[in-house]
Amino acid sequence: MSSRDTPVDRVDVRRHNLSLILRLLSTAGPRSRAALASATGLTRATVSSLAAELLERGLIREVGMEADQRLGRPATLLQVDGAHIVTMGVELGVGYTAVLVTDLAGSVVYERRRPLASMSVRPDDVVSVLAAEIRRALKATAANGLVTVGITVAVAGVVDRRTGSVIFAPNLGWRDVPLLDRLRSSLDTSIPLSLENEANLGALAEFRNGAFAGTQYLVYLIVENGVGAGIVADGRVLRGAFGAAGEFGHTTVRPGGEMCACGSRGCLETTIGLRALLGSTVPDLAIGLLNDRRLSPEAKVAFVIDRAKAGDPMALRGLAELGEWLGIGLANVVDSLNPEVIVLAGILSSIAPWVLESATRVMRANTLRMPTECRLETSALGFSAATLGGTLAAAEQLFNDPTMQIEGIQR
Amino acid sequence: MSSRDTPVDRVDVRRHNLSLILRLLSTAGPRSRAALASATGLTRATVSSLAAELLERGLIREVGMEADQRLGRPATLLQVDGAHIVTMGVELGVGYTAVLVTDLAGSVVYERRRPLASMSVRPDDVVSVLAAEIRRALKATAANGLVTVGITVAVAGVVDRRTGSVIFAPNLGWRDVPLLDRLRSSLDTSIPLSLENEANLGALAEFRNGAFAGTQYLVYLIVENGVGAGIVADGRVLRGAFGAAGEFGHTTVRPGGEMCACGSRGCLETTIGLRALLGSTVPDLAIGLLNDRRLSPEAKVAFVIDRAKAGDPMALRGLAELGEWLGIGLANVVDSLNPEVIVLAGILSSIAPWVLESATRVMRANTLRMPTECRLETSALGFSAATLGGTLAAAEQLFNDPTMQIEGIQR
Repeated sequence: MSSRDTPVDRVDVRRHNLSLILRLLSTAGPRSRAALASATGLTRATVSSLAAELLERGLIREVGMEADQRLGRPATLLQVDGAHIVTMGVELGVGYTAVLVTDLAGSVVYERRRPLASMSVRPDDVVSVLAAEIRRALKATAANGLVTVGITVAVAGVVDRRTGSVIFAPNLGWRDVPLLDRLRSSLDTSIPLSLENEANLGALAEFRNGAFAGTQYLVYLIVENGVGAGIVADGRVLRGAFGAAGEFGHTTVRPGGEMCACGSRGCLETTIGLRALLGSTVPDLAIGLLNDRRLSPEAKVAFVIDRAKAGDPMALRGLAELGEWLGIGLANVVDSLNPEVIVLAGILSSIAPWVLESATRVMRANTLRMPTECRLETSALGFSAATLGGTLAAAEQLFNDPTMQIEGIQR
Repeated sequence: MSSRDTPVDRVDVRRHNLSLILRLLSTAGPRSRAALASATGLTRATVSSLAAELLERGLIREVGMEADQRLGRPATLLQVDGAHIVTMGVELGVGYTAVLVTDLAGSVVYERRRPLASMSVRPDDVVSVLAAEIRRALKATAANGLVTVGITVAVAGVVDRRTGSVIFAPNLGWRDVPLLDRLRSSLDTSIPLSLENEANLGALAEFRNGAFAGTQYLVYLIVENGVGAGIVADGRVLRGAFGAAGEFGHTTVRPGGEMCACGSRGCLETTIGLRALLGSTVPDLAIGLLNDRRLSPEAKVAFVIDRAKAGDPMALRGLAELGEWLGIGLANVVDSLNPEVIVLAGILSSIAPWVLESATRVMRANTLRMPTECRLETSALGFSAATLGGTLAAAEQLFNDPTMQIEGIQR
């Protein structure tokens, strides 16, 4: 439908073809130059020249020979040289930071999570903590001879990927924070840094490595304090014109209802966010828990689950009510986007046993009846979805542009 | 993010390259074979072979010579041979049918609109009417020596493009009607027929030919009887897993509210659809107008506009209230998808002078505040948006696969 991807000049064509070869080797495994030429329609000479550049850049390597060759001559196989190249995902959550480093083959080489009272600390102090966490991870990976080629930072809020700024993160209390600029000054590194919405990275991780990997229309819905969502449509993360797509948490489901952290009333978040959950299930503990900045959302929800398990009527009633609002929210996601699967994450995973049934019932009652209904599932990726998505997004940039200049990658 | 578009074998590569050349000529105007080779990175020999096939298929032609040639030799220019190739958009509306035929250059060569009480007529009779309208248009175009290479049928409902069936069209009262199969039997033609949601085609028409053409994130919101929406995301029409994306009309904005034609309660359609508008602005006429199957939605809305112009307090209050609900609906679209522009069409265009201000105010109050706000505009394409989108979609199929076998196209 679009002709934007049409190569417009020779540099673009070459970059496009380098990307094509690297991606093919990454998804289809080792291939000979002849097989690559045949698969891409490029000439043998072009493929040889592209392979030479990728070899020189340290992105692929030659491995063994192809045994069975109809042309008579055995051919050298090429494969992605993933083991010494790594990417990093860094998450600034509400209440914690997390770092994950994986190589291009997807193996985890470093992981660290630590509590951080992000909402009570000034952005500058948060930047110092994040920078320290990144430096620590870089040091550890460098010590193992690994080259980090990209870092993606995940934030629970609307971000401007172009400028690297956090536009609005209601639950951190941030507005217009030039996060990447500050991280760059603090880190003094030439490694490409990028910024992304946490839920978008969760969606990418689900689309690539989750239980429903490859599902072309998938929504990842996460509740921690607030409600975040990442949309995969036609196999790509849908970000919207200015990076704010997927803010289902702030759609209005109860006009004139409760005040939301975003400043509006009656948002979905006011019915299924952490505040709503604690308020309706454990009203006696709610204020104390909400003000406690040391406990993670999961630790707070553990109080709800304890009471539900003990059969506390108020906790059970509150969970059932939340399930119904979740059902309304999910129905609206389904009618808007018609996904095949919605993956529930964060505290929604924890409370799933108490809300999934009512949510499914209300969702079905409020969506257009279709031959194939949307599946509702809980995430198997757990806490590391956003950082895993970050490593994948950073690797993606390299796949998109193998001509990226990266220090230390040639060898 | 996806490698699905990677050419996998030689036939695909050739089709892809034919498409590339045809598209380039269509968007960039006449080009020499040398210029095409340079722009695509393909060899001169490959371009010559591709051009020969497109010439043989009657899709391009040779025109004049390039005047200024650095290589010394003047080169023949190629251009898309659009004038004898046409595509057809057919709309089955609630209350009318419409047919539009345009050539590949976009010039209208045939147009006809006629009333049809589609909701009170059995699907088989509707098929007969549609088939007669299509035959009539084919006859008229054939008489002018034009070859119709594709027909797209637009329906106000959820459709399965793969099977050509209407899954659910609440305002036609249709469920599971194999429309294309029936049309095919009735028409006995080899011309490719396809089926699409009316609002998706409206969105495509806006994206291609509207006042905001090229806007990568655009939503087309149309109210006739019910509410339809087409989504353009990343420059492509977003259809969802099973073709039901964009059903914002059936998202819940008023839990437990009025019953909707879809069977749920409190859908956006119950607050901004034709029934809601007539009920709140001209309650004395509402039932009569809703039951009148000869009048179009626009003709019914004319009664509302007359009273509003006369300063009738009830009409003005009803319009203001509708504007506020529209604002809630638009806010939810914005928070879900973050479009750059929402184009309002159908009766929303007609009542815009009375609802745009309140809708904008409520929309802004209920969306996350962003540096760049979503623009709200009325469609300039009017009634023919869906059929125009149909001609564009049919042409698109030819651009995507220039090897399509079409009778009478070679010459």
